[in-house]
Amino acid sequence: MPSIKDVAVLAGVGVGTVSRVINNHPSVKPETKEKVISAIQQLNYVPNQVARNFKMQKSKMVALLLPSIWHPFFSELAYYIEDALDSEGFKLILCNSGGKPDKELYYFDMLKQNKVAGIIGITYNDIEDRVDTDIPIISIDRHFGKEVTCVTSDNYEGGRMAVKELVKAGAKKLAYLGTTSTVASEVQLRKQGFIDEAQGQGIQYQIFEENADNFDDEPFFEAIFKNENHHDGVFANSDLLAAQYIDKAKSYGINVPEDVKVIGYDGIQDNKLFHPILSTIRQPVEEMARIAVKLLLQKIEGEELEQDTYRIAVIFREGETT
Amino acid sequence: MPSIKDVAVLAGVGVGTVSRVINNHPSVKPETKEKVISAIQQLNYVPNQVARNFKMQKSKMVALLLPSIWHPFFSELAYYIEDALDSEGFKLILCNSGGKPDKELYYFDMLKQNKVAGIIGITYNDIEDRVDTDIPIISIDRHFGKEVTCVTSDNYEGGRMAVKELVKAGAKKLAYLGTTSTVASEVQLRKQGFIDEAQGQGIQYQIFEENADNFDDEPFFEAIFKNENHHDGVFANSDLLAAQYIDKAKSYGINVPEDVKVIGYDGIQDNKLFHPILSTIRQPVEEMARIAVKLLLQKIEGEELEQDTYRIAVIFREGETT
Repeated sequence: MPSIKDVAVLAGVGVGTVSRVINNHPSVKPETKEKVISAIQQLNYVPNQVARNFKMQKSKMVALLLPSIWHPFFSELAYYIEDALDSEGFKLILCNSGGKPDKELYYFDMLKQNKVAGIIGITYNDIEDRVDTDIPIISIDRHFGKEVTCVTSDNYEGGRMAVKELVKAGAKKLAYLGTTSTVASEVQLRKQGFIDEAQGQGIQYQIFEENADNFDDEPFFEAIFKNENHHDGVFANSDLLAAQYIDKAKSYGINVPEDVKVIGYDGIQDNKLFHPILSTIRQPVEEMARIAVKLLLQKIEGEELEQDTYRIAVIFREGETT
Repeated sequence: MPSIKDVAVLAGVGVGTVSRVINNHPSVKPETKEKVISAIQQLNYVPNQVARNFKMQKSKMVALLLPSIWHPFFSELAYYIEDALDSEGFKLILCNSGGKPDKELYYFDMLKQNKVAGIIGITYNDIEDRVDTDIPIISIDRHFGKEVTCVTSDNYEGGRMAVKELVKAGAKKLAYLGTTSTVASEVQLRKQGFIDEAQGQGIQYQIFEENADNFDDEPFFEAIFKNENHHDGVFANSDLLAAQYIDKAKSYGINVPEDVKVIGYDGIQDNKLFHPILSTIRQPVEEMARIAVKLLLQKIEGEELEQDTYRIAVIFREGETT
């Protein structure tokens, strides 16, 4: 079968010019275009090769699949991912799944058909068996299967760090507050780090957890505040949950940080204008984004990655709640 | 020249199947694929027609060009734009310009080369003369030139509404606080509405403005607080500016809403967990997004739009600051 080079030679132009004609690029002169088209016809240069060119061109697209761009953690992540992709000449397709498994699968199918070069995905649903992975994928925050590299903050160390900071602030009876998802995710390590550090230090603690799908804040917080074991230190596995706790605490006459020290996770607040300014375990969002892009591009190039999971160090950011 | 229909007839398949072969879709059986390729070769069905097909396929992409997805107003807007596009079978390419004119132009060029079907753009720079508009564009919040339809909240009514609400809350001496951009934008109508309503009601007011590029909060707020005309009602042209004012006011011993009532613009707060909960003129973000998408798709279809500017009604949302 004739190649694009054969067309170029016959037309007396460069390969780039043939490619521009195929892509209908406006910069090609009409005479040149005619020569190229004539060569294409003469050589019977067939569309499936053209298709390959288009495929190559289209493969400068990476899809970002996440629950909702509207969430501040995801929008910060998307900001840095787009920036990192752009500097490598890639464009970002944004897909909001709303956290719904069906919509996630629909997007995976669509992205496959549209031959994106790769996917960066954040999903908390169990769609693993239903996704096939001939497209390179980097997952953020959850394990996805052996083919899929995961980039995440160091959730385990974050959980330990929270206990250390609560103790440093004077807390003696701790509570862990968390929402869970039906599938194993790196986020669960926040709890494990919390438990291990509390046990290691010989500190009392309780765990309050609820599945995110069934989460109903009234009974969840009622159980916590009517508990006879009065906590003076709380680690919530997200900033929003920490803020909800603080809001509810007020209605029970409990003040933060006077009565209870509170630490969240994420670091979503990007200014000091709204209160409470949460003490929190800050996710290294920019670094996670840049590493995810770097690893994805390595995968696209066919490189083998050294690790399955890349855990990026977190820091404690002190606010007004400890 | 032969058409895709001729290929389909010769191969004894439907036009859809030919299209799938050209697009290398995995669902086509090898025998069918062979038949189609053979028909393509026999008929000399040429790549520029194939290119057209690819172009059609690629043209299911719309680019969203905005200063930063990280800003809560833009991320909410992006969320609804993606949702509306998806339900029409379009995908969204996200481009953060950082508000820099060079990066905006770079993206416009890139998008043109990549033949997106259309662009939804939010830019506050004067790049009008340097952008050509053979791609359908919908602009949000600013006028862009006659070819570009603008979707915006009803900024003028928003400004009037702010005055009415401040007066209703008991304010008698008003101040307008705003950042401006170098180019005329719909946002300026917030000030005009404020002025017209204040004058109409015979109420004292002052205007404090600074160009966003030179904005330095210290001198800006110092001028306001050291002013001898003690304001008791403030309308800030964004929620962030309103929050900055409230934060600074504290350090001057001024309490909101006791001493001064404050109204912002945007409605970026999506929960009641962080304080102050701003009284604000809420932009109809979802409606703006859906209308922008609807109008863009009409433009892509070649329809003439009835208006140059579509202004969507705003509402007052009461918080803790009036």
